[in-house]
Amino acid sequence: MSVERRDVVKAVALGGAAMLSGTPAAAAPAQAGSRIVHHVFFWLKRPESAEDRDALIAGLRTLRAIPVIRDLQIGVPASTEQRDVVDSSFDVSELMVFDSVEDQKTYQDHPIHQSFVAECSRLWGRVIVYDMVTV
Amino acid sequence: MSVERRDVVKAVALGGAAMLSGTPAAAAPAQAGSRIVHHVFFWLKRPESAEDRDALIAGLRTLRAIPVIRDLQIGVPASTEQRDVVDSSFDVSELMVFDSVEDQKTYQDHPIHQSFVAECSRLWGRVIVYDMVTV
Repeated sequence: MSVERRDVVKAVALGGAAMLSGTPAAAAPAQAGSRIVHHVFFWLKRPESAEDRDALIAGLRTLRAIPVIRDLQIGVPASTEQRDVVDSSFDVSELMVFDSVEDQKTYQDHPIHQSFVAECSRLWGRVIVYDMVTV
Repeated sequence: MSVERRDVVKAVALGGAAMLSGTPAAAAPAQAGSRIVHHVFFWLKRPESAEDRDALIAGLRTLRAIPVIRDLQIGVPASTEQRDVVDSSFDVSELMVFDSVEDQKTYQDHPIHQSFVAECSRLWGRVIVYDMVTV
């Protein structure tokens, strides 16, 4: 098992342990074992362009080389049931997990992330970011 | 290791393997090994009420008993840098992973989920759901 793979499994195992420990609802948002989940939704300038979508996805894949990222998932809208509360208007989404707010900041400032923004920001017209700390 | 814990670790290991396999950008949204990520953001009717927030978090924790859920994370806004693109106005968030759209539907219809909605929907004034399929 590669170091990278081992880190992923370890990170998830830790998350699973925290998930199953049955800790009560926390009043404070920062507690031992908590993670930062960074979820970004992109709306393309040209949503009809599969080429632009694939270019954005390819750009997001380059972010995997940034060491502080504990998990990275890239997605497109799922074909789940359409309900009033479901927003399926986005084109591409990235979901990342970090150990801490500091690691998330390190990611923001990392040259690979900066290159991604420089090269791909022309593709999207709108972006929304949600950052949560797990409790 | 409990069955539940083992399933979580297994699910994450599979996700990690898919993440590191370096598959090219997919044109089709459904491919082998893809997952459904279901991310829900709640805005409380009484955002100043820690009691309501904790009641919602406690309600969300009951969902763990639904077998089709491969991962469940519950969070509150993180103290990451405030930027124009960051929406930190939500009060509570839940992030779930499923193996398929069918499993997500099974979750929606599950009695535990229905009970959660019946008991906790009085707490929130607004909800947004994003469903993505990983590529």
